[in-house]
Amino acid sequence: MTLALDISHLLNASDPQARSQEIAALRNLHPSDIAEALEESSAEPAQMVEILNQVGNHKAIEAFAQLSMEMQQECLEEGKSQTMLRFLENMEPDDRVDLLKAVDADVRETIMPLIAQAERNAIRKLWHYEEGTAGAVMTTEYAMLPKYLSVAEALEKLRLQAPNKETIYYIYITDVQRQLLGIISLRDLIMSKPSAKLEAIMETNLIRVPHEMDIEEVAAVFSKYDLLAVPVVDKDTRLLGIITVDDVIDIIEAESTEDFQRISAVLPFDEEYFKRPLPRLFWSRFIWLAVLLFTSLISTTIMEMNAAVLNKMMALAFFIPMVMGTCGNAGTQSATMVVRGMALGEIAIGDLGRLFRRELVMGLLLGGALGVMAYFRVFLQDRDIMLACIVAIALVATLLTANLVGALMPLVLKKIKLDPALTAGPFIATIMDAIGIAIYFQIAFLLMKFF
Amino acid sequence: MTLALDISHLLNASDPQARSQEIAALRNLHPSDIAEALEESSAEPAQMVEILNQVGNHKAIEAFAQLSMEMQQECLEEGKSQTMLRFLENMEPDDRVDLLKAVDADVRETIMPLIAQAERNAIRKLWHYEEGTAGAVMTTEYAMLPKYLSVAEALEKLRLQAPNKETIYYIYITDVQRQLLGIISLRDLIMSKPSAKLEAIMETNLIRVPHEMDIEEVAAVFSKYDLLAVPVVDKDTRLLGIITVDDVIDIIEAESTEDFQRISAVLPFDEEYFKRPLPRLFWSRFIWLAVLLFTSLISTTIMEMNAAVLNKMMALAFFIPMVMGTCGNAGTQSATMVVRGMALGEIAIGDLGRLFRRELVMGLLLGGALGVMAYFRVFLQDRDIMLACIVAIALVATLLTANLVGALMPLVLKKIKLDPALTAGPFIATIMDAIGIAIYFQIAFLLMKFF
Repeated sequence: MTLALDISHLLNASDPQARSQEIAALRNLHPSDIAEALEESSAEPAQMVEILNQVGNHKAIEAFAQLSMEMQQECLEEGKSQTMLRFLENMEPDDRVDLLKAVDADVRETIMPLIAQAERNAIRKLWHYEEGTAGAVMTTEYAMLPKYLSVAEALEKLRLQAPNKETIYYIYITDVQRQLLGIISLRDLIMSKPSAKLEAIMETNLIRVPHEMDIEEVAAVFSKYDLLAVPVVDKDTRLLGIITVDDVIDIIEAESTEDFQRISAVLPFDEEYFKRPLPRLFWSRFIWLAVLLFTSLISTTIMEMNAAVLNKMMALAFFIPMVMGTCGNAGTQSATMVVRGMALGEIAIGDLGRLFRRELVMGLLLGGALGVMAYFRVFLQDRDIMLACIVAIALVATLLTANLVGALMPLVLKKIKLDPALTAGPFIATIMDAIGIAIYFQIAFLLMKFF
Repeated sequence: MTLALDISHLLNASDPQARSQEIAALRNLHPSDIAEALEESSAEPAQMVEILNQVGNHKAIEAFAQLSMEMQQECLEEGKSQTMLRFLENMEPDDRVDLLKAVDADVRETIMPLIAQAERNAIRKLWHYEEGTAGAVMTTEYAMLPKYLSVAEALEKLRLQAPNKETIYYIYITDVQRQLLGIISLRDLIMSKPSAKLEAIMETNLIRVPHEMDIEEVAAVFSKYDLLAVPVVDKDTRLLGIITVDDVIDIIEAESTEDFQRISAVLPFDEEYFKRPLPRLFWSRFIWLAVLLFTSLISTTIMEMNAAVLNKMMALAFFIPMVMGTCGNAGTQSATMVVRGMALGEIAIGDLGRLFRRELVMGLLLGGALGVMAYFRVFLQDRDIMLACIVAIALVATLLTANLVGALMPLVLKKIKLDPALTAGPFIATIMDAIGIAIYFQIAFLLMKFF
């Protein structure tokens, strides 16, 4: 399905015919594909802007909007102000604010006064919403009509309003204070009698989100109600903007990627894998591996403290990978299920008690079953009842602990406003390893004294 | 945002007034919320169907469609055939086929002859597409018009066709062989002059997907082109159906959940966490933990084989958690990044060489940096140059191996048609543990002989 075009000729061809052929090929592409071709080429920002200038105004604007934020930023900082101004004024308001926040303050201050008044107002409105909230991802471009219009009048108004609005599949009915009264889908509008009044056909049982709602929750609302767009309102239900489904897909994918990165102990990053420069990729990984290496030394210290026990029964060392591994795996299972359940809105902080009971039972069942298996494995190979007992009891105890910690920690982190996905990651697993080894040696020590 | 209503009174109230109040409250809810209220109640399938029968025909149909597949299945197997028939005939064709595939063959054979001819044809058309492909998730309800109509005629036709079609935001222009010629968005249709011919305004540069395309790739197409729906075609570009964005959101979330489950060694399941019965949740987890427990015994065996080395230098045991842990963490990092990159279409099988070079460099850099850190940590605490050398060299070697295996295995699995997410999971990590321990003891053995 990739339609990416190799545009290397465009960059350094002296042959004008080859150039014009490639430009013609580019002009036929979807804007997203033009953006992809540019991203995958080695074009400098200045060259990109020059190429975009040749693919037609509408496509250039759309293609620019599809470039990655880093590319947009480089183009803007390059500073072909006339072209860039045109691109900026035609971007989606929410993307434009993100871009302007990312560029150098100098560049921003040069370009801001040149932007048309209407767009500058939109920028000001969106500037202060906190990242990760509904307000920060909403757009201020939507179709808004008063309730007393007829369907025919509404369609006429839309024809006048809509050329700049990609998002007219829902029409929002507001009063003079911009209070949201109702919503009509474009489908219902064209299905209705031309003489009907909007207030008679509008849906008043509204799905809407407050501007401070977390974007993960917004995504859950889209998924539950199968929406194409959702209105964002302030505390007096005044309409502030809308969030469209294409942004929601990007949000869902970005949030999942971030969770995957946290679970695998990589510092979250936005770029595609191959586009992340090696030194920065190194850093994203190294910092976590180094932290984990030092954390794992807790296990080393615990073993050193138990050197006497280990000296008496060296076979204990042989089963360390099994106890550590099983404990880590069970903890990761619980944590990942709970983190995912929270991301999808299936598990909330109020479910703490219910979750504790469920995972307590689960930990005992799993520990019991695996403990019995481990007992027979050790006994049949080593014919050593004490060793078998130590391994089996340690397995039950460590697994139960890991299971409960894994299940409950995400809720605790959520409560103290940290990302729950951190708990599904190796940091907790490494600490669990240390706890597991401590329990293992403690049980060995007690049983050896007892017999 | 949860509007869930407690409908327990509805289930066992003898007070008719309380009942009718609750029914009235239900009737005011969005169908998705009615479905949620039913799911969270303890209602039997027969009671659910009875309650649905009282919330109004349109809402009942929509609410039924929003129930989980398991609930729908129980309702259908309960067999209130008249009501169920009405629900079935009004479901989205793709969901209907999934449901009919899930129910008992007996139930299916009883109900199939009762379904109207048109719907039965739709079922037959969708029945044979392989799960996980575009064909299996597409719907056959869409607006299709010939190219010679004018805009005004098209709007008229839509008004006649559309009452049953939720998905008229794109209109598909086909010839008599159903060959897809163009697409017009509803927005462009209402923005155009009423006298314009469809063929003059339709977009012919089409984004479309073949019916056998993997649904993860379909999701990537939506995300790239910001679509509300995409047409699905056969090899002669005949229109077979369309996939709508609300289904794509569900697909993206389900696929991510499955990847999370695989990464954390839980057998994939569909239900919400709290809805999965305990015995089945136990099984999803136990089976993997048991496999991993036995796999970890490879490490035990390797250590037993190296008992002589360990006897000479017991301190070696103390650093096993560090070598195992670091090696597992690095492998998980690479594997997760590659698996996620593949899911988002950023990394393909053709990138093998590029990936190998990148991860080779990365493995050497990370191994080098962490090896030096480990050397000093061991040397400063134990004042034992040989032990420090063993740990440091082992760390470089195991980390490099884990990194390359983690990065390349997902591509290998994809090649042999297994789910790449399996490699980011603990199965590979456990095998890597064994390889890591083997390398560690081998290096210890060699260095001890050398000095």
